[in-house]
Amino acid sequence: MVFNTLSTNSTLPMSSMVDALLKGERWAVAKAISILEDDGIQAREIVEIIFKHSGNSRVIGVTGPAGAGKSTLVGKMIGVYRARGFRVGVLAVDPSSSISGGAILGDRVRMQEHALDDGTYIRSMASRGASGGISFALRDAIRVLDVAGFNRIIVESVGAGQLDVKISSIADVTIVVLNPQTGDSIQAIKAGLTEVGDIYVVNKADISGANALYNDIRALVAEGRDAVAVLKTVASTGKGVDELVDAIEQSLSRKLSNGYKEIIRKRVESELMDIVFNMLAKMVKERVGIEHEMIERVIAKEIDPYKAAESIVAKVVRYE
Amino acid sequence: MVFNTLSTNSTLPMSSMVDALLKGERWAVAKAISILEDDGIQAREIVEIIFKHSGNSRVIGVTGPAGAGKSTLVGKMIGVYRARGFRVGVLAVDPSSSISGGAILGDRVRMQEHALDDGTYIRSMASRGASGGISFALRDAIRVLDVAGFNRIIVESVGAGQLDVKISSIADVTIVVLNPQTGDSIQAIKAGLTEVGDIYVVNKADISGANALYNDIRALVAEGRDAVAVLKTVASTGKGVDELVDAIEQSLSRKLSNGYKEIIRKRVESELMDIVFNMLAKMVKERVGIEHEMIERVIAKEIDPYKAAESIVAKVVRYE
Repeated sequence: MVFNTLSTNSTLPMSSMVDALLKGERWAVAKAISILEDDGIQAREIVEIIFKHSGNSRVIGVTGPAGAGKSTLVGKMIGVYRARGFRVGVLAVDPSSSISGGAILGDRVRMQEHALDDGTYIRSMASRGASGGISFALRDAIRVLDVAGFNRIIVESVGAGQLDVKISSIADVTIVVLNPQTGDSIQAIKAGLTEVGDIYVVNKADISGANALYNDIRALVAEGRDAVAVLKTVASTGKGVDELVDAIEQSLSRKLSNGYKEIIRKRVESELMDIVFNMLAKMVKERVGIEHEMIERVIAKEIDPYKAAESIVAKVVRYE
Repeated sequence: MVFNTLSTNSTLPMSSMVDALLKGERWAVAKAISILEDDGIQAREIVEIIFKHSGNSRVIGVTGPAGAGKSTLVGKMIGVYRARGFRVGVLAVDPSSSISGGAILGDRVRMQEHALDDGTYIRSMASRGASGGISFALRDAIRVLDVAGFNRIIVESVGAGQLDVKISSIADVTIVVLNPQTGDSIQAIKAGLTEVGDIYVVNKADISGANALYNDIRALVAEGRDAVAVLKTVASTGKGVDELVDAIEQSLSRKLSNGYKEIIRKRVESELMDIVFNMLAKMVKERVGIEHEMIERVIAKEIDPYKAAESIVAKVVRYE
């Protein structure tokens, strides 16, 4: 499972690595994503070189509360996609939270049957703690899998509030997986997931409560939204997964033929905002750190915090 | 309980309202906090006027998991503080989450016995959804209560992760309340609360499991931290609440005589950062929103997102 042990040669030139990456070689994929996670100057170089080759894959976001069976479902989705001739990349976003960290590692094991298949690449990515940190590495890791020829990329995220919503701004199709056993599914839905899903999956559909949840979800997402599918699956047996992949592909076709340019535009805009904010935030943070006099003036009540902040911002940023 | 029905005159000049506020008149307190929650231009005006009068009160943060008995405890703390001659303001931070919203409303009722006492002011504040949104209104609402002469201000927050940690950066003394009945107390502690508390309260100390929790907490917080108190209370009967108020006042005295200037400095710095980031986020959103050509170039893969972001940053940053 530890693919990047192959890439021990750290003096290897970037161009050789990128060449191998474009040929879809696993060690280069592993190496490139590790470099992205390190977030150094080399990360920028990789993106600069591969960006123009990217944009050929479709990204499927899979989210939902912990315990909904997302990883088992993703494992079965890989099988269906492979049988249909696709090459499948999986990025499992692992929030740094100590509570959920264990679950994802366990979940990866469930996908292990695909680990030695050359048309499948599975990787978990750790959140870098800083807000928005995972978004940068995740977007760029998707580009790496994309240029390496994985034409369906599944991004699995543990249901951790904000991140779920973020996933839907990165993925082409977002799937929300729910479990009839956990009573708070409807709460989770109400808390914002009703807005983000293209497809809602009631997993563990063979247990009691599944039909009630299915009907609830249908009622909830039906209000004023077109083209939202609600499906039932039993991930452990694979039941309904073929139909799920059909629904994903239908959703993709619909989007690609209908306003996809606008989706891409919004996505680029949102990525630029993230990067610009991140760059400015670093600058301003340094600036505030050296604003001892301003801080003293606020402490002395000579100036209020909003006025002080305004004058710091004005020093860093040019108003037009 | 709805104090701000008294402030029906919306054409009242700001200066009259602030004059009334400085005299401690309730309607002015209610009106001012409502204006802060609306977050308009008037909010900035209020802070500008009252800021120089602020800084005379001590802020006590009360946090911990839902169901720990925080509101009942706060109700009893009000009684003890009133008996000692203090004027007490309470701000209950109400995350917009539909799950916990109901609890806080119910909890306010438990404090109702103090609602007609002129030396007590109780208010719940809704989170404005935007990240960091509640922090601004909360800091400013504390200033309002402060200049209105409430010399002990209790901020109660539902244990909602990030917010708890935020509270400790706003409060002079932070109390973490735990319930022996909920098995996840230790988890909550491990998840970050061991870092933020000055005082840990094992509430419902009359039930089984209380001693075990008390010993666990003592062991956990004892590691390498001075001046942390662990206490037992029974909020429903008031047992231990006098001792809790003693511990709070001791903690305050210790901090005031020992490095308080540095605490204030850090707090001002953190507030400035928050305000500055908020201003930047708005600015970046507007700026990127008009960068149509740059967005088109990224869509066309002529330029990668980081390069594009850099060139946007270069336009707005004032290099020195």
